[in-house]
Amino acid sequence: GAVFKLHSPLAVCTSLEGRVGVWRRQILAASASRWCSFSHSPETRSKWSSLYRCSNMNAWALETGSKLPPLVPGKLRLYSMRFCPYAQRALLMLNAKGLDHEVVNVNLARRPEWYNDVLPAGTVPVLYQDEKVISGSMPIAEYLEEAYPQPRLLPSDPYLKALDRSFLDSALACASLIGSISLKRGSKEEHWVNFVKKIGLFEKELGKRKTTYFGGDQPGLVDYVIWPSFPAALAFSKLYPDLKMPAADEFPLFSRWLQAMRGHPVVKATVNEDHVFLYAKSGQEGERDYNAGLQK
Amino acid sequence: GAVFKLHSPLAVCTSLEGRVGVWRRQILAASASRWCSFSHSPETRSKWSSLYRCSNMNAWALETGSKLPPLVPGKLRLYSMRFCPYAQRALLMLNAKGLDHEVVNVNLARRPEWYNDVLPAGTVPVLYQDEKVISGSMPIAEYLEEAYPQPRLLPSDPYLKALDRSFLDSALACASLIGSISLKRGSKEEHWVNFVKKIGLFEKELGKRKTTYFGGDQPGLVDYVIWPSFPAALAFSKLYPDLKMPAADEFPLFSRWLQAMRGHPVVKATVNEDHVFLYAKSGQEGERDYNAGLQK
Repeated sequence: GAVFKLHSPLAVCTSLEGRVGVWRRQILAASASRWCSFSHSPETRSKWSSLYRCSNMNAWALETGSKLPPLVPGKLRLYSMRFCPYAQRALLMLNAKGLDHEVVNVNLARRPEWYNDVLPAGTVPVLYQDEKVISGSMPIAEYLEEAYPQPRLLPSDPYLKALDRSFLDSALACASLIGSISLKRGSKEEHWVNFVKKIGLFEKELGKRKTTYFGGDQPGLVDYVIWPSFPAALAFSKLYPDLKMPAADEFPLFSRWLQAMRGHPVVKATVNEDHVFLYAKSGQEGERDYNAGLQK
Repeated sequence: GAVFKLHSPLAVCTSLEGRVGVWRRQILAASASRWCSFSHSPETRSKWSSLYRCSNMNAWALETGSKLPPLVPGKLRLYSMRFCPYAQRALLMLNAKGLDHEVVNVNLARRPEWYNDVLPAGTVPVLYQDEKVISGSMPIAEYLEEAYPQPRLLPSDPYLKALDRSFLDSALACASLIGSISLKRGSKEEHWVNFVKKIGLFEKELGKRKTTYFGGDQPGLVDYVIWPSFPAALAFSKLYPDLKMPAADEFPLFSRWLQAMRGHPVVKATVNEDHVFLYAKSGQEGERDYNAGLQK
């Protein structure tokens, strides 16, 4: 079988794939300790220790001609694309909950023949478990919260939950702004201006909440579903001199949040910023590399 | 005080407003029986009987110079615009739950001075109750479902709920397509084509669910939050010969749903199609009439 090595020192998993449909996983236990430098209670750490059982989220993207690996009974499977911010929301939720799962990455340019049958909405992410099929990042995130309530990532109080949803109502537009830059739709400078306006909204909301994360002293659903726009935004700000991230002192609470999220073990285990940069660069150069950062 | 009469025979309330801040309501009991022609269990009917306590949802829209009426302790208040499809979602949910509430309609062209203070997101709908403030149609709809679970309008099972949310993920785009036609953004013919594509999606979903409504044998949250696009679409199809609603035999399940919704007491009590038409016509002619259908 081919061995996929990850470039980044953040990665703890290599994904070993023999024939299609046979999935093995190898854990680099040595890397695990690196993540625990962040200070958490032993209980919290044990919840995240399941991250080290690590899904195959960095598996090579399946493309035209590849067979559909059979479902494992009872096991959660996420159809994903490693750099899709919507799919990353679902991955962050799965990892924050410490849920055992597997990932099928899909090459969106050279789609497998089974693509439309398996992905009813024509997009990733889609979550499968036996007969259950859920499309869309927010329905998946809310489902995982309800079906696997521990650790809680949304408040259980209906009003506090409504405040989270209300904030997301405006905040989630970040993803489509950054997505439009990625897909080269419209003026990237204009999308960026609107994106930075959203950062102003984040600053105001963090000021209201008086906590490091939107979720409190740990990230919650709000943090995880917002996050995926930022690795992409950071990549664009390196690639395009006109797209500048605001200075830290302009939005101090947001900057603290950004740094805390970048250092958080769940985030580090899920979204590799170096790979996101390589993917954004491949897009800038003309052909998006759905396997950016992996070696075949 | 000025007396507002409603043009349509569907209406059961007149809203009597003396000075701003003094709200009285009058119930035309005679009209109530008209709604009960639809066949429901006595229990269901008693839930909807609270509709006849009727909010002041057809109150004249407050504009520049008007004072903000003080909140009534404990009472739900919805800031609304009678023809905003997002606000109508919240109104349908309030009425379907039979919740006592009051409505403050706002003139979006001649905004009251307190507009930005009271509507933090700069848009309607916003729900108030004492210190609680919730912005956005979907957060309000989900909040009402959680805080007032009877009658249930979303399944309690997390997976079935996820299916509803997943469907809404694509279906809700109807509102922004119809909204773009209303606000004359982009090509209305193009928006209409995409809107009719969504009707194809509805047909497929109703075929899967094998029920009259998305919610089963009664409308659920899905039906109520989708509905507000249709009175507007029906109005546009009368105003613009190019925007044709598909023939009933093209989408038979959708057509049955459309007719059932139009005849449903909660829908009839909340969205007056004749007034929606007058509003759409005023927009076509140049100046949107936020009080369309009311007489001062």
